[in-house]
Amino acid sequence: MDPATSALLTDLYQLNMMQAYLDRGETKTASFEFFVRKLPSQRGFLIAAGLEQVLEFLSHLRFAPEELDWLARTGRFGRDLIDYLADLRFAGDIHAMPEGTVFFADEPILRVTAPLPQAQLVETRVINLLQFQSMIAAKAARMVLAAPGKRLVDFGLRRAHGAEAGLLAARASYIAGFAGTATVLADQLFGIPIFGTMAHSYVQMHDDEAEAFENFARARPKNLTLLIDTYDTEAAARKVVALAPRLRAAGISVGGVRLDSGDLIALSKKVRRILDEGGLGAVTIFASGGIDENSIATMLRAGAPIDGFGIGSSLTTSSDAPGLDCAYKLEEYAGLPRRKRSAGKATWPGCKQVWRRFASDGRMAGDILSVEDDDRPGEPLIELVMRAGKPLEPRPTLDQIRTRAARELERLPEPLRRLEPDASYPVEVSEALRRLAAEVDGRMAQAQEAKR
Amino acid sequence: MDPATSALLTDLYQLNMMQAYLDRGETKTASFEFFVRKLPSQRGFLIAAGLEQVLEFLSHLRFAPEELDWLARTGRFGRDLIDYLADLRFAGDIHAMPEGTVFFADEPILRVTAPLPQAQLVETRVINLLQFQSMIAAKAARMVLAAPGKRLVDFGLRRAHGAEAGLLAARASYIAGFAGTATVLADQLFGIPIFGTMAHSYVQMHDDEAEAFENFARARPKNLTLLIDTYDTEAAARKVVALAPRLRAAGISVGGVRLDSGDLIALSKKVRRILDEGGLGAVTIFASGGIDENSIATMLRAGAPIDGFGIGSSLTTSSDAPGLDCAYKLEEYAGLPRRKRSAGKATWPGCKQVWRRFASDGRMAGDILSVEDDDRPGEPLIELVMRAGKPLEPRPTLDQIRTRAARELERLPEPLRRLEPDASYPVEVSEALRRLAAEVDGRMAQAQEAKR
Repeated sequence: MDPATSALLTDLYQLNMMQAYLDRGETKTASFEFFVRKLPSQRGFLIAAGLEQVLEFLSHLRFAPEELDWLARTGRFGRDLIDYLADLRFAGDIHAMPEGTVFFADEPILRVTAPLPQAQLVETRVINLLQFQSMIAAKAARMVLAAPGKRLVDFGLRRAHGAEAGLLAARASYIAGFAGTATVLADQLFGIPIFGTMAHSYVQMHDDEAEAFENFARARPKNLTLLIDTYDTEAAARKVVALAPRLRAAGISVGGVRLDSGDLIALSKKVRRILDEGGLGAVTIFASGGIDENSIATMLRAGAPIDGFGIGSSLTTSSDAPGLDCAYKLEEYAGLPRRKRSAGKATWPGCKQVWRRFASDGRMAGDILSVEDDDRPGEPLIELVMRAGKPLEPRPTLDQIRTRAARELERLPEPLRRLEPDASYPVEVSEALRRLAAEVDGRMAQAQEAKR
Repeated sequence: MDPATSALLTDLYQLNMMQAYLDRGETKTASFEFFVRKLPSQRGFLIAAGLEQVLEFLSHLRFAPEELDWLARTGRFGRDLIDYLADLRFAGDIHAMPEGTVFFADEPILRVTAPLPQAQLVETRVINLLQFQSMIAAKAARMVLAAPGKRLVDFGLRRAHGAEAGLLAARASYIAGFAGTATVLADQLFGIPIFGTMAHSYVQMHDDEAEAFENFARARPKNLTLLIDTYDTEAAARKVVALAPRLRAAGISVGGVRLDSGDLIALSKKVRRILDEGGLGAVTIFASGGIDENSIATMLRAGAPIDGFGIGSSLTTSSDAPGLDCAYKLEEYAGLPRRKRSAGKATWPGCKQVWRRFASDGRMAGDILSVEDDDRPGEPLIELVMRAGKPLEPRPTLDQIRTRAARELERLPEPLRRLEPDASYPVEVSEALRRLAAEVDGRMAQAQEAKR
């Protein structure tokens, strides 16, 4: 059983609410929007990602016969709900920002418009998919911005939170500009370039490190990168130099060396010197082990001659901000806009659009959040991507999404590109949206009054 | 395709190393151990979890024909490796600490003993499974210790990192003592109790909040919990009081109310008073929204009359420590112990055991890490759980694992139980293990010398 495709991968309250909706025939059209309430303090922007997986989830959403039987056996639900679930095929519309688009707090990146019980049911997985990939893409983009011209590779599967997290982190980081990943399945499923050579265990199983290098080089001569920190990094670099002529005679060239521990700034400089003096100026240095965008920036500022980075935990867990304060909220039901007014969690009502303005140099200059049928200057970011349960063709390819993200990063205002900690971006809430919120509040007050 | 069961869910370097091992016939028996190098600064202990999923993964590990075809088409590997993978069935032994056991840095919680290429291949997923659930179980245990007698429920699926993370976080938190989860699939697959009633959207789709409460109560009368913070929490509490007699007449009793925003200490006190004065002393108060063990402790210290907590992001992402500094390292190959000596990442060689001593009051008093065939005072924690690829029966049930974890938490030294920030626990490295490390280093130096 694949948990990722099970219709039971949802919160119990969704099914409870569906039962309550059906009991009163509340199956009219609802619109829910997904947005981030507040950016993590360490993030100046986010990158929309995960839409493709949402569309796939919605397209294939089915309750399997054994799931329906199980639900019936729990005794929690009426026959009407079980029958409704048996027939359920997602038939709604989806509006969304294209994957790879930069976005900010309060800006919806996805809207679901569907019969209320359907739109309700999908909440849990829609949030689960969008928040994770958008969060990882944003974290990866920070690393890309911190390491211009360097090769970044996702090494994070082992520390990712489960199988799907590892796989989708490879996708999200590739979108943000990583060169690829170590995760083999990400190549098979998504066509993402994969990288990887040797671990410490390969060196350890030999009694002699130089012999390990030579055996590995002969077995795997292409794109050869040797891991040189198992015992003594500088000594190992000298072994690589000593070994190179014999390998060259066999037609094998060392592509690079990898450092995975110790003071990477000092070691990379020493290793660079040893390699250069040994005539291995073309051999690159790749670093891994506990790296994030801050340590990359520190290393590069200190002149560490590192050509690429393998990044694990900090990337696949977004370690400094492993969750986004995000929500999927009812904005309209049966033709009437809605909002909640909970302390600190009030929402803007109605179906919305985001317009983005650009300065004359092409950089993003500011966004306006307004009601969908407003007409504002700038580029509208939200578009129809699924109609009546069918994704609109053609869908962008992963490389098109990646190209879009690269262009977006280029168009960021300079303080955001430089990852300045206090860099902010103007997102204006339109007069029309404020008016709509006041109207909704007025309508609610009247309904309340009428009840008394 | 379920990524969780694909044999391609591994790092490319595992396949590269397998090819290199096969090239030289290096298929002798290897032992690798999984351990945590260093506890996160915010953790005094961890709880072993995820073993059941590891055994399942190993039992079912197969390369599907289309995966083999794909690997062959990449042109990266020889026919010998593809054939080896086609026949591959995990045939190794596994030693492990039982799930639910408290453990500390440097203590292996799992050992894989298998032909080297097999033991190598499974590294990525073994780490992926063990680190996640052990991390979540430890985080959940902190919440359990902070909230004695309270009902804790996992609300985290939406903010979990993908599908599997949400599902396995439900399992790990249940092991640690949570009452259950909102994730429906966790009940179907693991039999974990599920909880859940209504979301803001249910209230919002009505024009009147009191009407929403009544409609929901009539549709879902069992274990009824009403969400009262959509607009004005105190006003909503009064609506519940006003509604209760009419519901009672229909045979429906309000079980609880839920607060999801605002100052939960102040609001819970006000709501408690409103309910009590309205004759609803038996109605419980359940709180959710941005809660972790620290806020629980603060609320309870301040006398907040809250009976249970729904916990999302902080639990399913282990937000303050979303990754463990852990490793899966070669400890023995072809009968000889091995170690790495990388700066800051040196390992203890050989197959190891952990003995735990207890004080006269039954509390844990200290651990000793030594070589497996040592004989130390205390209870040995690591046992054989899989022989030649077959899990030893009977496996513990989830409830047995949960009972074990509860006993473990009771036996923690008091400073660890109280979550004191600097609480530590003595783990001693035995003389025998230090001697073995020195022997390994000596052997390596000799091999090095012989080469000159």
